[in-house]
Amino acid sequence: MKALQYRTIGGHPEVVDVPQPTAGPGQVLLRVTAAGVCHSDEFVMNVPEEEYTFGELPLTLGHEGAGIVAETGAGVTHVAVGDDVAVYGPWGCGRCLNCSAGKENYCTRAAAEGILPPGLGAPGAMAEYMLIDDARHLVPLHGLDPVKNVSLTDAGLTPYHAIKKSLPKLGAGSTAVVIGTGGLGHVAIQLLRVLSGAVVVALDVNEEKLDLARQVGAHHALLSDAGAVAGIRDLTDGLGAEAVFDFVGRPETVTTAGAAAAVEGDVSIVGIGGGLLPVGFGAIGYDVDVRAPYWGSRSELIEVFELARRGQVEVEVETYSLDDAPKAYERLAAGKVRGRAVIVPGA
Amino acid sequence: MKALQYRTIGGHPEVVDVPQPTAGPGQVLLRVTAAGVCHSDEFVMNVPEEEYTFGELPLTLGHEGAGIVAETGAGVTHVAVGDDVAVYGPWGCGRCLNCSAGKENYCTRAAAEGILPPGLGAPGAMAEYMLIDDARHLVPLHGLDPVKNVSLTDAGLTPYHAIKKSLPKLGAGSTAVVIGTGGLGHVAIQLLRVLSGAVVVALDVNEEKLDLARQVGAHHALLSDAGAVAGIRDLTDGLGAEAVFDFVGRPETVTTAGAAAAVEGDVSIVGIGGGLLPVGFGAIGYDVDVRAPYWGSRSELIEVFELARRGQVEVEVETYSLDDAPKAYERLAAGKVRGRAVIVPGA
Amino acid sequence: MKALQYRTIGGHPEVVDVPQPTAGPGQVLLRVTAAGVCHSDEFVMNVPEEEYTFGELPLTLGHEGAGIVAETGAGVTHVAVGDDVAVYGPWGCGRCLNCSAGKENYCTRAAAEGILPPGLGAPGAMAEYMLIDDARHLVPLHGLDPVKNVSLTDAGLTPYHAIKKSLPKLGAGSTAVVIGTGGLGHVAIQLLRVLSGAVVVALDVNEEKLDLARQVGAHHALLSDAGAVAGIRDLTDGLGAEAVFDFVGRPETVTTAGAAAAVEGDVSIVGIGGGLLPVGFGAIGYDVDVRAPYWGSRSELIEVFELARRGQVEVEVETYSLDDAPKAYERLAAGKVRGRAVIVPGA
Amino acid sequence: MKALQYRTIGGHPEVVDVPQPTAGPGQVLLRVTAAGVCHSDEFVMNVPEEEYTFGELPLTLGHEGAGIVAETGAGVTHVAVGDDVAVYGPWGCGRCLNCSAGKENYCTRAAAEGILPPGLGAPGAMAEYMLIDDARHLVPLHGLDPVKNVSLTDAGLTPYHAIKKSLPKLGAGSTAVVIGTGGLGHVAIQLLRVLSGAVVVALDVNEEKLDLARQVGAHHALLSDAGAVAGIRDLTDGLGAEAVFDFVGRPETVTTAGAAAAVEGDVSIVGIGGGLLPVGFGAIGYDVDVRAPYWGSRSELIEVFELARRGQVEVEVETYSLDDAPKAYERLAAGKVRGRAVIVPGA
Repeated sequence: MKALQYRTIGGHPEVVDVPQPTAGPGQVLLRVTAAGVCHSDEFVMNVPEEEYTFGELPLTLGHEGAGIVAETGAGVTHVAVGDDVAVYGPWGCGRCLNCSAGKENYCTRAAAEGILPPGLGAPGAMAEYMLIDDARHLVPLHGLDPVKNVSLTDAGLTPYHAIKKSLPKLGAGSTAVVIGTGGLGHVAIQLLRVLSGAVVVALDVNEEKLDLARQVGAHHALLSDAGAVAGIRDLTDGLGAEAVFDFVGRPETVTTAGAAAAVEGDVSIVGIGGGLLPVGFGAIGYDVDVRAPYWGSRSELIEVFELARRGQVEVEVETYSLDDAPKAYERLAAGKVRGRAVIVPGA
Repeated sequence: MKALQYRTIGGHPEVVDVPQPTAGPGQVLLRVTAAGVCHSDEFVMNVPEEEYTFGELPLTLGHEGAGIVAETGAGVTHVAVGDDVAVYGPWGCGRCLNCSAGKENYCTRAAAEGILPPGLGAPGAMAEYMLIDDARHLVPLHGLDPVKNVSLTDAGLTPYHAIKKSLPKLGAGSTAVVIGTGGLGHVAIQLLRVLSGAVVVALDVNEEKLDLARQVGAHHALLSDAGAVAGIRDLTDGLGAEAVFDFVGRPETVTTAGAAAAVEGDVSIVGIGGGLLPVGFGAIGYDVDVRAPYWGSRSELIEVFELARRGQVEVEVETYSLDDAPKAYERLAAGKVRGRAVIVPGA
Repeated sequence: MKALQYRTIGGHPEVVDVPQPTAGPGQVLLRVTAAGVCHSDEFVMNVPEEEYTFGELPLTLGHEGAGIVAETGAGVTHVAVGDDVAVYGPWGCGRCLNCSAGKENYCTRAAAEGILPPGLGAPGAMAEYMLIDDARHLVPLHGLDPVKNVSLTDAGLTPYHAIKKSLPKLGAGSTAVVIGTGGLGHVAIQLLRVLSGAVVVALDVNEEKLDLARQVGAHHALLSDAGAVAGIRDLTDGLGAEAVFDFVGRPETVTTAGAAAAVEGDVSIVGIGGGLLPVGFGAIGYDVDVRAPYWGSRSELIEVFELARRGQVEVEVETYSLDDAPKAYERLAAGKVRGRAVIVPGA
Repeated sequence: MKALQYRTIGGHPEVVDVPQPTAGPGQVLLRVTAAGVCHSDEFVMNVPEEEYTFGELPLTLGHEGAGIVAETGAGVTHVAVGDDVAVYGPWGCGRCLNCSAGKENYCTRAAAEGILPPGLGAPGAMAEYMLIDDARHLVPLHGLDPVKNVSLTDAGLTPYHAIKKSLPKLGAGSTAVVIGTGGLGHVAIQLLRVLSGAVVVALDVNEEKLDLARQVGAHHALLSDAGAVAGIRDLTDGLGAEAVFDFVGRPETVTTAGAAAAVEGDVSIVGIGGGLLPVGFGAIGYDVDVRAPYWGSRSELIEVFELARRGQVEVEVETYSLDDAPKAYERLAAGKVRGRAVIVPGA
């Protein structure tokens, strides 16, 4: 079957032919219907050899996946051939304290047991078929279009997880800031509008991106430049925002995030752009919680799909065939993707 | 000055002439600009003599009040003559554990010290002037119209307090039910729309009231009859609602509330219609929290006014002069008030 | 193999010979090392035929189980023959929103799919061998003695779940009340001492039981009679307790529980003695949360075992052979068991 | 009257004679019974002139104060001459959203209105008499010894506030780390033992300090050196601590704090030693909340005193007369104070 692989450190992703896997006991084989393209893939392909921790090369990319069940292994229940499903990506052991609560993204055994997510170590979704290690990692789509919704498994789940933690602070009279209105950010704006009482302020680097932000619901959209913090303070009687979500994570954006946060607010650094925000007395508002979250839990993914089913969140999508997947990565690197790029292997 | 008083047990409220008070040390005198009419007043006027706990008669009614500062006593700071303010009604000692957190509605010393709220023991807002025991009980209106917003001090604060407690359960995919769409209920619907991710289902006894519910934002409006629970189950895949707010509190509505609540949901019985919901194994969904809240805290009132300032909540108001106040109570008793009746002493 | 079964409605449990099961795909067979005796079993055996919802008779009893893995079916990973494990009892579908968070006790699909817990519908632990439907329902004992700890799967997990919900209210200066110091109650007292800042007040019907309460850590132990509420008010400056846990659940104890709760406190009715507590304005303290919880989640069970491993909770145990199991039920019905009765099939 | 003042930038505190104040309307005059010596005073006296924000010099020191009411101004209620009280130090406006909830430490108007705490701008407690701006800033001692308990107003309240925020993470199986076992740290250890289920690990620089840590309840006490993180990982199966409280706040201790925190844990940087902890993807555990809290709320102070009343927290105290106060600061600077130094003006 065809698969898009990252084959050598520093190389570009390539479409190659690989053997089609089969489902062993407890496993499930999917015929892939959609696979999302993510900045994390770029991040992985830029890690130097000595720091590379994503398993052995070649690596079939794709940690956002959806498909139709093609084969079930012995002992698989609750899933049947023909089911339309999406893949919960942050695989864990399923047995530790965190996994027992569905928080496989924070599995305490994954490192020790060598468990890696699909597309980030295990073979991913950018192929005609994809092997799922355990049926619990499948979430039914219940009629949702896989192409339009596959990205909810990361570009939806990751901001949802970050936002859910901040909801207690986003009540009456509050303000939320979203830095970066791309794949994750443009979903975050919608989630904040649906789930919180906050006024939503979006920050990005050009008017085209700010237009998307307004279109998906931002109350205010500001250029992410030296005046951004003053703009946010103006909108908040000088007090700052109760929560700031930085989906860029570069040094300049985390600085903005820290300076824009109100006393007792939250700063979530989601983007992996290498920025670090120093926290201590006098360096940031009192009791501001600064954190770097990662992906989300299994039940949170179910909740995100429920929002999609209600029409409360929608991903902007550009589609590509598997053969054209390398072009999608080129556009992503150039900052040209509007919303999310999705690979459709059957196209 | 003129005042509307409840003068004898079982009597009707009357407009009478009483001496105008003056502000002692720490106190503030308001020229009243607006005073809200509430079902609680009816409740008070129906309590038999032997159970009456609202101080000595006559009682000047009005626990929802707003006014302009006319006089400040010695030691009053942060408040000046001419300020446009609203009155935080549930007065407490100001010093106990709860009062120290601004939760004067749950003052642990009020009973022992004989402290009673204005209009519910102390002289209330249905008069030309009103005496405030302590300047901390005044909240600035910051430009909000007193007539349109005075009812936020109870009809806004009470549902806000109840809803705020349930917000952690009203996230993605959730459903909230509002029983009774009158003074408090029609505000509750708006609060739920602004602050939560819930689908909002309103219940009331006739189409006119359901129209108001839809107009202020309810997604669904159902007749509050024998079929209501089935209707809610239908809308929730059989699971029930994550939170039910009963602003009627009669035996039949609390039964509906209990039957409509999902496992781990909330039932808040706010109305004082004499209904009691029995809780125990098998009688209600597992881990449903059933409670009877009372009014709200000082900081919650500030938050409610901030929502009004943003235009996110608006009270439907009928206005009456002080002389016509008895008519307002007649319409209220007949279930004919749309939203909230407000007395305007200066009109 | 031998098994203790409830065979006819209204009958007594009997030791009989039944076929030994084998593990199909995804399943695990345990050689049982310990099985706990619970009031719920009595409850089940007293349900009249027309209300009986625990599957078909005969029913092998035992919803508290521990064992050694004897056989694993195809597709079972993370569990191996010879492992010493305990059984998480409230089985669910594993896929719904609640199950995805490990809250199988609140599975939304169990009723529709006919899933019943072992010993409460599926064949239970009171047998030489026990079949586990899915390996995820096993929790490793990591060196804990199965006989001394098997009851943590219900008598530990159930109070732990109830208490965990109340911990935010059990901080500095708080008081917790435990009604009933038997199997669950004597564990609850220990949990409250370890996990909260509360003064712990235990209530029971005789001095022998109050002695056990004091021995396991209660600060105060009072007779559960007409003076109990006054006693609790005395200990709390008249304010009542921030949380009351009723492990009896009879009409008289739920009444005590409601009357003893402070404003904004919790009342958890855990016992299934048929008592119902009416909630509404004036009937109970403002904002008291009254609830009836059920069992606990998978991650909560892991947490309970961790407490046992640290020596912070210990179950008082009486042991019986499988042949003597009927005697254990007789003593339980007579209120004579100190702590928990445990059946040891291999004894 | 005598007062200890900081008179010139960079100077040493001096005992001088100043006029005795009197209580205006709303104010209260205390005859001081005890005043605590704090590292923050040193911090203030080391701020260079151009960065000095603590009002005009001279400054009467002392932000931990207790006294007997000597005089009450007009309009003061609930406080009477002769009352034994402690001073809530973080004064705010009393009217903003935060002050309305008793969180005057986070007053949003203090800076604009020029409100400064006693001893940190306003005249403090290190004098024979102290003027309180508003009676709400007094908390009754209810029989507690002022000398032994005055430091609870900061050395108790500050760690209590920080710990209370982390209590939801300090349940079954958790670990808490306290860095620095001085004035605040030795109270923090006691608070963690009373209020949480955590194993408590204390870190400090010499055995004498570790002895105090063990004596007040630390389960483990480790040298705060290069091996400390490994020591904490050893005690936690490699996972780290659910909460780390750094009462030193130097560059090396915040680094230890960050490295010792478990995924989803908390790091509270309380000490003002100039250390900053960089937060971002890869720099710290996922979803660790890093924050710098400040003091605490009015209701939290009442809760701390309630713990003292129950005998659950006790401050180690060294006492000095007002004339000897300069010596107390010398010992503090030399790291020689065991627990907390307290000035007793009447001694």
